[in-house]
Amino acid sequence: MFISFEGIDGCGKTMQSALLAQALRDEGRQVVHTREPGGSKGAEEIRRLLVEGHGERWSPETECLLFTAARRDHLERTIMPALEQGQTVITDRFADSTRIYQGAARADLRDVVDRLHALMIGTEPDRTFILDIDPEIALARGNARGGNEDRFESLGLKFQQKLATGFRSLAREFPQRVRLIDASGTADEVAARIRAAL
Amino acid sequence: MFISFEGIDGCGKTMQSALLAQALRDEGRQVVHTREPGGSKGAEEIRRLLVEGHGERWSPETECLLFTAARRDHLERTIMPALEQGQTVITDRFADSTRIYQGAARADLRDVVDRLHALMIGTEPDRTFILDIDPEIALARGNARGGNEDRFESLGLKFQQKLATGFRSLAREFPQRVRLIDASGTADEVAARIRAAL
Repeated sequence: MFISFEGIDGCGKTMQSALLAQALRDEGRQVVHTREPGGSKGAEEIRRLLVEGHGERWSPETECLLFTAARRDHLERTIMPALEQGQTVITDRFADSTRIYQGAARADLRDVVDRLHALMIGTEPDRTFILDIDPEIALARGNARGGNEDRFESLGLKFQQKLATGFRSLAREFPQRVRLIDASGTADEVAARIRAAL
Repeated sequence: MFISFEGIDGCGKTMQSALLAQALRDEGRQVVHTREPGGSKGAEEIRRLLVEGHGERWSPETECLLFTAARRDHLERTIMPALEQGQTVITDRFADSTRIYQGAARADLRDVVDRLHALMIGTEPDRTFILDIDPEIALARGNARGGNEDRFESLGLKFQQKLATGFRSLAREFPQRVRLIDASGTADEVAARIRAAL
């Protein structure tokens, strides 16, 4: 089974995907917990080009190509080998992030994003959880986290609000695959909602 | 005018493109002499991922995405602004390299390469010079050059022979745009052939 977590920066994806991975391991499953951009040696090198530096470092089109390059490496070298061995793969972000970050929020590139995905990636998760949270709360969390991986947070609250609207629309667009999860409350409360939806 | 130089590693592209740039400057033209992968700040950062390290570091598909990302940045930030100002742009490699390196020699990906080019790049040079040389001579030159940008040379003579065959076929495929130049003899002799063909 291939599961992705999606949502805006600071929505709690990283913690919730780790909690679900641990819960499934406790039940005896073999789980690969991974992330994008990154998740393989080469893709982690591409990651540095994407999440560091100033917000306008790349055009939306170039950014889209770099995310797709990283995703292709991640898919070939981490995700597919694990799925073929019968393991569960849980990824913190996948193609939906590109649909929303480059396809809707930064530029109206959704058609290009979809064609690039069809040409070079193709695969979709079996189940996607979108963690839905107030962008002001999420941005405060993201800023509190510190570090230098703040390129997207640096684009500000209005950008995060566009992202949140975009992610909600994905739940309507892909009702079979995507579950919208209320990400307010404690980590345990959110984890319980995710288990109920799985 | 937008001019590209193409050919296998060690064919003399870098020197010949520099000689042509200088000759056109001597005639009073404004010339931007650039290269791929690279040619803009972001694309030069992507270049390091592509030309360093071991030959199988990336799959042909991921490699193709990275070259296209670098090309998009190069096109947006160096080539198009210069052409819009009426300058001549001479580039050491462009999309033909991806057609041959990833589209024919490393894998049979030409259809994917063409679709990716149509979706994300579109632009072609007005004139392309392919420097045609015996791969054994070229590989010896490339190896003599030293440095750590030897990822493609490290794939060996058979690979360079496939490349040379591929580049020759491009001259037949795009007879309006592409000129095949005999790259044997001295640098001055080759430069004279290029001027005659321009």
